[in-house]
Amino acid sequence: MIFSVGILTISDKGASYERADQSGLLLHQLVEALPGKVICYEIVPDEEKIIQEKLILFCDQTNLILTTGGTGPAPRDVTPEATQAVIKRPLPGMAELMRMQGYQKNPMAILSRGIAGIRNETLIINLPGSPKAVSEGWEILLPVLPHCLEKILGNKSECGGTLKQR
Amino acid sequence: MIFSVGILTISDKGASYERADQSGLLLHQLVEALPGKVICYEIVPDEEKIIQEKLILFCDQTNLILTTGGTGPAPRDVTPEATQAVIKRPLPGMAELMRMQGYQKNPMAILSRGIAGIRNETLIINLPGSPKAVSEGWEILLPVLPHCLEKILGNKSECGGTLKQR
Amino acid sequence: MIFSVGILTISDKGASYERADQSGLLLHQLVEALPGKVICYEIVPDEEKIIQEKLILFCDQTNLILTTGGTGPAPRDVTPEATQAVIKRPLPGMAELMRMQGYQKNPMAILSRGIAGIRNETLIINLPGSPKAVSEGWEILLPVLPHCLEKILGNKSECGGTLKQR
Repeated sequence: MIFSVGILTISDKGASYERADQSGLLLHQLVEALPGKVICYEIVPDEEKIIQEKLILFCDQTNLILTTGGTGPAPRDVTPEATQAVIKRPLPGMAELMRMQGYQKNPMAILSRGIAGIRNETLIINLPGSPKAVSEGWEILLPVLPHCLEKILGNKSECGGTLKQR
Repeated sequence: MIFSVGILTISDKGASYERADQSGLLLHQLVEALPGKVICYEIVPDEEKIIQEKLILFCDQTNLILTTGGTGPAPRDVTPEATQAVIKRPLPGMAELMRMQGYQKNPMAILSRGIAGIRNETLIINLPGSPKAVSEGWEILLPVLPHCLEKILGNKSECGGTLKQR
Repeated sequence: MIFSVGILTISDKGASYERADQSGLLLHQLVEALPGKVICYEIVPDEEKIIQEKLILFCDQTNLILTTGGTGPAPRDVTPEATQAVIKRPLPGMAELMRMQGYQKNPMAILSRGIAGIRNETLIINLPGSPKAVSEGWEILLPVLPHCLEKILGNKSECGGTLKQR
């Protein structure tokens, strides 16, 4: 199975063309390993309502939405709040794991306020904004992502101890 | 002190007699080590309202409710949502710990959406559905559970560094 | 930059003069390393409304509020609930980290229900009640705190991998 993926880059500078979207472009490459196909991609400013609306739209077309940016403690960082407002069922472990494992390499990773959760049949995951953090977060999540996405779609196999061959 | 325990198995297949409740029966044995006595035990389907009602009923008679099942990302898994609706004070560390330590043995443990929290004088803990995960989760929690339950009952001793002799 | 700090000790016994506020006094010393200056300090009983009101008042004058006490599972422990009611944006990693690292030294640290979060331009962090736990928690948080506080104030520097020289 090839999963449909949405990438939402949240960045005031990216949305106003002041900065290239390195992290969004990186995610385009990384999702191939799922295997995944990018169906939706946009860059929006750090505005809670706009992020919410895009997430809801993307959910209709994707199995997985990856956001990058807006997860820190700065005043304009509201990606977790926008995500919280649209998910129905939280999946706290993914965010906890990225913080804890990220912290081993860079203590500042603990400051990410990112969350993860499920809306209907779509998993939404907040990744940090920097390409390095995106890459490290993806490496942590990839081993469990395909199994998780299949479960969300209603795959009835038991949660055993072995990763699926794909 | 012997703690009163409720066991709530949440499983569509268990409730319709398609599958034996191995995890619930395992928990009956495991709680003896608290030491605990099982006062309430039921198997219910993965229906949020039904789970909520049982949790509320069990709280009147028990110090501790252990649920098993319904914590994953599948569409019918709603045990954490039902639990969230009835607890008054969250106890996030127990769920974080089970995910993090479980992840070391089986990466899929990070996908458990289980929570823990306090309603009145009762602690409710969501355990995963598989007997193996129940057994591993219990092993992680047991060293801190008696002290936690005594605190919830209003035991005024200080939170020192040593486990109580029992 | 020297950060303005509020210290709020939450303790029925402290508020009624039955016990000296060792943890609050310890925090007065510890914050110097930020570097920080204590602007507000009070001892209040474990009453949710009173804690909320003090937190809101302190926020107008401080960059950082450290609470000590009221984070456990006992019936009167309501500091996390009072804090949850006044923060606008959660910062879950700090509490997760204190629990996980604290657990390595003392398993009971996992029972802390403390949270952390941002209200306007102020970071609020719940620390446990015992001086030992306060000291250990502070040691864990200090390396990331100044960077976090600067971000909350809108400092636009990137979240790089190196700690700021101070």
